[in-house]
Amino acid sequence: MVNYEFGAGIWMFQQFIDRYATDAYGPAVSTLEAIERAAEVGDIKVLDINYPFAGDDVTVEQVRETLKRTGLRAQAITPHLYMREYQLGSFTNPDPNVRRKATDLGKKAIEIAQQLDAKYVKFWPGQDGFDYPFQADYRRLWEHSVEGVRTVAESAPEMQFAIEYKAKEPRVHMFFGSAARTLLAIEDMGVDNVGIVFDLGHSFFAKETPAEALQMVARRGKLVSVELNDNWREWDDDMAVGSVHLIETLEFLQALRQINWQGPLLLDQFPFREDAVQAARASISTIRALEGVLDRLDLNALTAAQDRQDALAAQQIVLTTLLGAGIAKDER
Amino acid sequence: MVNYEFGAGIWMFQQFIDRYATDAYGPAVSTLEAIERAAEVGDIKVLDINYPFAGDDVTVEQVRETLKRTGLRAQAITPHLYMREYQLGSFTNPDPNVRRKATDLGKKAIEIAQQLDAKYVKFWPGQDGFDYPFQADYRRLWEHSVEGVRTVAESAPEMQFAIEYKAKEPRVHMFFGSAARTLLAIEDMGVDNVGIVFDLGHSFFAKETPAEALQMVARRGKLVSVELNDNWREWDDDMAVGSVHLIETLEFLQALRQINWQGPLLLDQFPFREDAVQAARASISTIRALEGVLDRLDLNALTAAQDRQDALAAQQIVLTTLLGAGIAKDER
Amino acid sequence: MVNYEFGAGIWMFQQFIDRYATDAYGPAVSTLEAIERAAEVGDIKVLDINYPFAGDDVTVEQVRETLKRTGLRAQAITPHLYMREYQLGSFTNPDPNVRRKATDLGKKAIEIAQQLDAKYVKFWPGQDGFDYPFQADYRRLWEHSVEGVRTVAESAPEMQFAIEYKAKEPRVHMFFGSAARTLLAIEDMGVDNVGIVFDLGHSFFAKETPAEALQMVARRGKLVSVELNDNWREWDDDMAVGSVHLIETLEFLQALRQINWQGPLLLDQFPFREDAVQAARASISTIRALEGVLDRLDLNALTAAQDRQDALAAQQIVLTTLLGAGIAKDER
Amino acid sequence: MVNYEFGAGIWMFQQFIDRYATDAYGPAVSTLEAIERAAEVGDIKVLDINYPFAGDDVTVEQVRETLKRTGLRAQAITPHLYMREYQLGSFTNPDPNVRRKATDLGKKAIEIAQQLDAKYVKFWPGQDGFDYPFQADYRRLWEHSVEGVRTVAESAPEMQFAIEYKAKEPRVHMFFGSAARTLLAIEDMGVDNVGIVFDLGHSFFAKETPAEALQMVARRGKLVSVELNDNWREWDDDMAVGSVHLIETLEFLQALRQINWQGPLLLDQFPFREDAVQAARASISTIRALEGVLDRLDLNALTAAQDRQDALAAQQIVLTTLLGAGIAKDER
Repeated sequence: MVNYEFGAGIWMFQQFIDRYATDAYGPAVSTLEAIERAAEVGDIKVLDINYPFAGDDVTVEQVRETLKRTGLRAQAITPHLYMREYQLGSFTNPDPNVRRKATDLGKKAIEIAQQLDAKYVKFWPGQDGFDYPFQADYRRLWEHSVEGVRTVAESAPEMQFAIEYKAKEPRVHMFFGSAARTLLAIEDMGVDNVGIVFDLGHSFFAKETPAEALQMVARRGKLVSVELNDNWREWDDDMAVGSVHLIETLEFLQALRQINWQGPLLLDQFPFREDAVQAARASISTIRALEGVLDRLDLNALTAAQDRQDALAAQQIVLTTLLGAGIAKDER
Repeated sequence: MVNYEFGAGIWMFQQFIDRYATDAYGPAVSTLEAIERAAEVGDIKVLDINYPFAGDDVTVEQVRETLKRTGLRAQAITPHLYMREYQLGSFTNPDPNVRRKATDLGKKAIEIAQQLDAKYVKFWPGQDGFDYPFQADYRRLWEHSVEGVRTVAESAPEMQFAIEYKAKEPRVHMFFGSAARTLLAIEDMGVDNVGIVFDLGHSFFAKETPAEALQMVARRGKLVSVELNDNWREWDDDMAVGSVHLIETLEFLQALRQINWQGPLLLDQFPFREDAVQAARASISTIRALEGVLDRLDLNALTAAQDRQDALAAQQIVLTTLLGAGIAKDER
Repeated sequence: MVNYEFGAGIWMFQQFIDRYATDAYGPAVSTLEAIERAAEVGDIKVLDINYPFAGDDVTVEQVRETLKRTGLRAQAITPHLYMREYQLGSFTNPDPNVRRKATDLGKKAIEIAQQLDAKYVKFWPGQDGFDYPFQADYRRLWEHSVEGVRTVAESAPEMQFAIEYKAKEPRVHMFFGSAARTLLAIEDMGVDNVGIVFDLGHSFFAKETPAEALQMVARRGKLVSVELNDNWREWDDDMAVGSVHLIETLEFLQALRQINWQGPLLLDQFPFREDAVQAARASISTIRALEGVLDRLDLNALTAAQDRQDALAAQQIVLTTLLGAGIAKDER
Repeated sequence: MVNYEFGAGIWMFQQFIDRYATDAYGPAVSTLEAIERAAEVGDIKVLDINYPFAGDDVTVEQVRETLKRTGLRAQAITPHLYMREYQLGSFTNPDPNVRRKATDLGKKAIEIAQQLDAKYVKFWPGQDGFDYPFQADYRRLWEHSVEGVRTVAESAPEMQFAIEYKAKEPRVHMFFGSAARTLLAIEDMGVDNVGIVFDLGHSFFAKETPAEALQMVARRGKLVSVELNDNWREWDDDMAVGSVHLIETLEFLQALRQINWQGPLLLDQFPFREDAVQAARASISTIRALEGVLDRLDLNALTAAQDRQDALAAQQIVLTTLLGAGIAKDER
């Protein structure tokens, strides 16, 4: 069993709101309280932390102390590039002043990352894209996206950056929408400190084959971080890991082994109607159970089946191992 | 040209928020201010109004006066059945106390509707459904959905009620998800004062053929109201009418003529990044232009084409009329 | 464990072709040879048989003898209502002569069903629907669909009929597209010998919740038969059972227990690139393994979780049982 | 108006079959007859021709003569890499002998292209990919795909090659599935004579924004050819141009102007139930009408609206021009 370290996006332990339940699904939670909650999970060791922090006058010092006290570490800093002022885009905003604000916030996030010893700064430009046909000049979207990330990345060559792609939401069409598109945009940046956060749920949502797309990103040396969750493949539902796509999640974990992933696995969930601590434990528990399945998998037999693209044999090996004694090999 | 009266859901003129831009896309707007904004559009004459009202201590009397002063009327009252306390469902909430609150709020909405002389009370139980496999007892979901609506409907036999179906959001899977399912549930209610609000965007989103589904609802005598908007068919994007699915919107308007719809057309938009008044005018302008196209449509020729299911001939008639001289008939 | 009898659509053992591999995925297979192949599976006991039969001059008598010799039975007769002459529809064809041919073929299927002692005649009118906006008069589609099935059903009141719904393919939009729509159409038929074949894959493809839709059909007394397979939810891929949607397939099998289904489970697969006998065995093996999981499921605990819509608890119960010791209860 | 030359995939004028109407939608049509039919359209000047040819003993010489006589030209040669023997893949087939056959057929296509003076050889490896989770070693799929195309391309450095991507069908998941993925694979090939055939319908189907993806391909200098059609975005329905996505088709034609596309526009339709000649004329007629709309479009105003991402203004400009006097500018 790969003994992964676990982490989470800190938002998982904060307040959720949406466009209908405008009184929110629960009370407000400050960044400091969210760290405490994350620590309650037990297995969560690292966090992706949004900046600016939530709560009145929360300081970097307070965050550092709370992390230290709870035994957690900052893995990433994610600047809030998708709030009201960025509603028409951050890096691609038609207003150059807003674009500058976005890169300034990106640079501020570098400072915070340095102060908290985080491994990377994450860009998730959720408002960058378009809503309507004919609304945008697509070439300019591309140029501004490339230029914005490059500007921040060039300002701190020793810092690692990572883009988390998603097909849509909140922007109806997001610019960094798939693994392949993001790889092409990173090429155009011409810097070597920008990579990808591979979010399993976003890959499902983009109708990718996650295990395949992960390997494509890794092969090009651009895999910076891995986030896990699940959804119904038609929206970014941010559900507990393995709750819908169990077999593909297993295949994704197998791909992580194939690329020899050594970093932590971060959870990216929005447990609107569930207890966040329990929701995190559920995902970790499922991941470990699936790792156990992988440990028992007959890799030689699986490789042999894949060598001849024998779908039924490959499926039998996987399902037999997954479902245990239920499927006897000799039945087939 | 059918001289439709226009209306809108009042939310279109209020504040938008989502799970990312938690500082909202603009400032708070009270129900009274929203009525004023709606009146600015010029062509908006009726409103679907949420209850409880937005804003501190806004009273029914104030709403009535504002409507009167601006020359608008209340078309419908839609109770907020999807706020925090209903996050696990309103009519289908596992807690009987919450279910009772939901029906009580439904009954309160009747009073408000009577006081504002609204034509119907609308139910949009956006939290009723489920998120995860195995989470819900589906039979109970069905029973509670039927029972909840029936309870409110039976309490005021002279009032008209209408259910607005949607496939999902905020609940990951919503119970009243399609026209056909909702018709079946209404049958089970055994009352005759519950019908359907047909939302064009929700029909696109449910992967229905809107013109077809509309006729199905009308044929069973259950069409209470019509709302229009557009989306990319994979989410309820609540965009301006005709902006994506122009031809199907035209076909939908033609279906409204076929069933001889005389009521108003309500807009259901969420112009997150646009001016709401302009967004309403855009939709009305497009609807009128499409009505002009329908006026010029050679119905005899279209019927003849449909009589033999001649797709190319039907398309030519429609596109020739839509695109004008661009497509000469003799070319084909 | 429910000791289901297994069956299959006979097409599973025949020749596959598609619009690209026009030289077919393998050699032609007659109805008689297909029965032999089905018998090879071992666990297949009943067949849904297409009429007209495949192969030169194959007679009912030959089919009966081959069934008898191999120990198989005819469960259903499915007339070929979707061949070249029905390309614009069978029951809804614009040409009344073709509509009559369709009902005549339906009646002929009754005879064959009687001669082979089949339990029901299945309608799968794959060409009935439309391709283009504005192509069809939807009301007429509805009337002809209802009338066509009723005509055949009324001609043999003692025979059971069943409609298998599917969203599309080969027609771009099929008329009987979802469980709910089909229930409404059956109501309009006004006969009591027409029900539904619930095909798990078609339910996935229609974006239904299969366990929920199954119960809806059963509750209205319209469930005639059950077919199983899997797909990627965006097309009717007709893959082996449980290969993609393992958890929802488990939930579906649980729903079959809840409605106390006693009939056989039929496989509906198109193993284009696999050995059909092996593909059938794979599905049966998976179904049995999942039945074993259901046997071990703590139903009291699951019901208690569903009583409070506790998604995480319900998931834990299911995943713990499914994945075995991998998920220890006390971890949560 | 851009005076595009028109062309078509020759398959549009041949016989259609699918997995249900196994007696085909019409009689067999040889390559020679298909050329004659294409010529009947009047505006079709170039053809993408499949090799091997359809019909008994049809020779290159006969094809050349028929083209000459009818005034048509060969634009492309597309080898049949997706017939029975390639059912597990052509370039990615697990059997090295089949992979060699595939590259040999690719090389044979070069000869034919040279003999017919075609502009490029098109690869559409419809069977390359996978059906089931765990069936394939994705890295090997990538390597074989890259290697197969490269092998053929390197054998004829003076010939142009082009890959037509599609998300799926006939293989359940196709390897060259999107514009971005195909660009990455072409990079890996390390040759400069391989580009992309941009098929509008495949772009819709891949849930891309076609106007955006087209520009991305063109910007990288990889656009070789353009094919047009329409679909419902959930399958490759190969319908007449503009029949469903009229506005996005308009935007796509505008993008062709922006990149200054001078080549022909090829139709890629499967008019299963329509007359092929009429179906081609319908598409050409619609394209010309949309070109007329583009001629009338106020580009300065549109650019200004896009400069501020003003969705409503951009939409108004487009819809006003499209729908003519129906939308008066002063209304807004």
